[in-house]
Amino acid sequence: MLHKFYIMSLLTVGTMAYDALETPFGKTDRILGGAATYIALSASYHVEKSNIVSVVGADFEQPHLDLLKSKGADLEGVQIIKDGKTFFWSGKYHLDMNTRDTLDTQLNVLADFNPIVPEAYKDAKYLMLGNLMPSIQQQVLDQLPQRPKLVVLDTMNFWMDNCWDDLVEALKGVDVLTINDEEARQMSGEYSLVKGAKKIMTMGPKFLIIKKGEHGALLFHEDQIFSAPALPLEEVFDPTGAGDTFAGGFIGYLAKTDDISFENMKRAVIWGSAMASFTVEKFGTERIAELTNEEINARLEEFKSLVSVDIQLV
Amino acid sequence: MLHKFYIMSLLTVGTMAYDALETPFGKTDRILGGAATYIALSASYHVEKSNIVSVVGADFEQPHLDLLKSKGADLEGVQIIKDGKTFFWSGKYHLDMNTRDTLDTQLNVLADFNPIVPEAYKDAKYLMLGNLMPSIQQQVLDQLPQRPKLVVLDTMNFWMDNCWDDLVEALKGVDVLTINDEEARQMSGEYSLVKGAKKIMTMGPKFLIIKKGEHGALLFHEDQIFSAPALPLEEVFDPTGAGDTFAGGFIGYLAKTDDISFENMKRAVIWGSAMASFTVEKFGTERIAELTNEEINARLEEFKSLVSVDIQLV
Repeated sequence: MLHKFYIMSLLTVGTMAYDALETPFGKTDRILGGAATYIALSASYHVEKSNIVSVVGADFEQPHLDLLKSKGADLEGVQIIKDGKTFFWSGKYHLDMNTRDTLDTQLNVLADFNPIVPEAYKDAKYLMLGNLMPSIQQQVLDQLPQRPKLVVLDTMNFWMDNCWDDLVEALKGVDVLTINDEEARQMSGEYSLVKGAKKIMTMGPKFLIIKKGEHGALLFHEDQIFSAPALPLEEVFDPTGAGDTFAGGFIGYLAKTDDISFENMKRAVIWGSAMASFTVEKFGTERIAELTNEEINARLEEFKSLVSVDIQLV
Repeated sequence: MLHKFYIMSLLTVGTMAYDALETPFGKTDRILGGAATYIALSASYHVEKSNIVSVVGADFEQPHLDLLKSKGADLEGVQIIKDGKTFFWSGKYHLDMNTRDTLDTQLNVLADFNPIVPEAYKDAKYLMLGNLMPSIQQQVLDQLPQRPKLVVLDTMNFWMDNCWDDLVEALKGVDVLTINDEEARQMSGEYSLVKGAKKIMTMGPKFLIIKKGEHGALLFHEDQIFSAPALPLEEVFDPTGAGDTFAGGFIGYLAKTDDISFENMKRAVIWGSAMASFTVEKFGTERIAELTNEEINARLEEFKSLVSVDIQLV
């Protein structure tokens, strides 16, 4: 059993979804997915309780609600639309696992989602704006009477293409932005990630995390850069949810330790990377829902030996 | 002035060349290049003297020979073919700087290169087989009366495509192989670098370094993995010679410290990465030929802060 600090102040907005996936290793029908799902499961290894704002349809299965509750998710903020269907996404990954084709997207209840933050959630100290329409991310932030200690926003190229102005507006209220390397290039118009990061950090976020998949992640803050490796894996089985899992491990660690210094964010990036390295080992949430302390510690030890070096100057 | 150990036992075989380069930032006519050139310049920051086996034509300019000599290169093993021309390569880099088109290759004196290791070089303790025809790499190794303490071989996809059998034969006598990620996939037939590395380490090399350009490098040995970052740069001006510079910094550091443990190889990988990060800042050898102690130490400090993290277990 993990030793957890009881902090009630992690609030996550994000999708709860069903995904149908195809990878070079196999395929699935409708399995549990969605950014808020992965974030909550990943953060559950740090925080006793996390508050979720999301929306599902009547088809969302009770065992999936039960799983999230058993992991400390508070679902008061999850709207269940009686005559609606849960957001559905279907995709197929290429051999490199870094690129994928979307086969089907059914927004369903997400199309009219009007997020409502319950009163009990409004003292949130840590706010995770999971990958979603920027205007919805903004609405959640706007409902909080006082600004959280830390606001983390995850987004993707789709919103840059389709809701650029809303995204730029939302970024103004954000402390940490997480995107991948191609998205950082798209957002900044700079090929160099260092130049791009500098530009993006003038748009609102004081910290930027650039996720590079199998190549790890870069954390930027002012003139500081931290490079976190990804764990080299024998097999990446299914990358779905890796970014959300990263975000959940990252903000969960920060919420637990309640320390938002650059030094502690580096540790949080390693935690996020470690959690993401589990997610990709099986389909969907299978792996991230069942971890033990021993497995997590063994993985963190792997990260330690992966980066440990005693650099000698001239 | 660097404090250097006087070890006469680093031997490098490789090309000495003229390159004409085009990058998104500019172009050059015939500038000094070649694997042995970059390796010797990079290693010169560790070793007083390095022995070179190579070949050039009568067109190879005296100032370039003088530059190499001034950096401690012994050129007794460099054949100067009076009626021949120096190897010439011309290439154009794409915007991502990871891919390039070869515009022209003139093998010239390289076509009939018959490497001869001078007597004075034959006690080599550290042998760097720079990127070249595998059969030539093999001939150099075969001329040494006793096996060096460490043999490092660098190669590329071109030799895998055209001289596979010779390459496989040469690999049997090698301790450390350095290739890039695509080449590791091609050589092993495995997409996963972890699986690929395991397979390649059954072919001869006990250590494998996979170079990933802007994403750093991975060092494999038995079940151990070390992940070295690349320094995130504002601008990669010209990647030519980065891999050779890496190799020179790597083997130079090992020759200086005379320690081939995994722990020390990790430090050597950081040294190689640091030296390569200089090379790409200007065209050709311009940057690597002019470094000061202060610049190198400052760069190593950047690597330190880039990777330093105090990972906390659960």
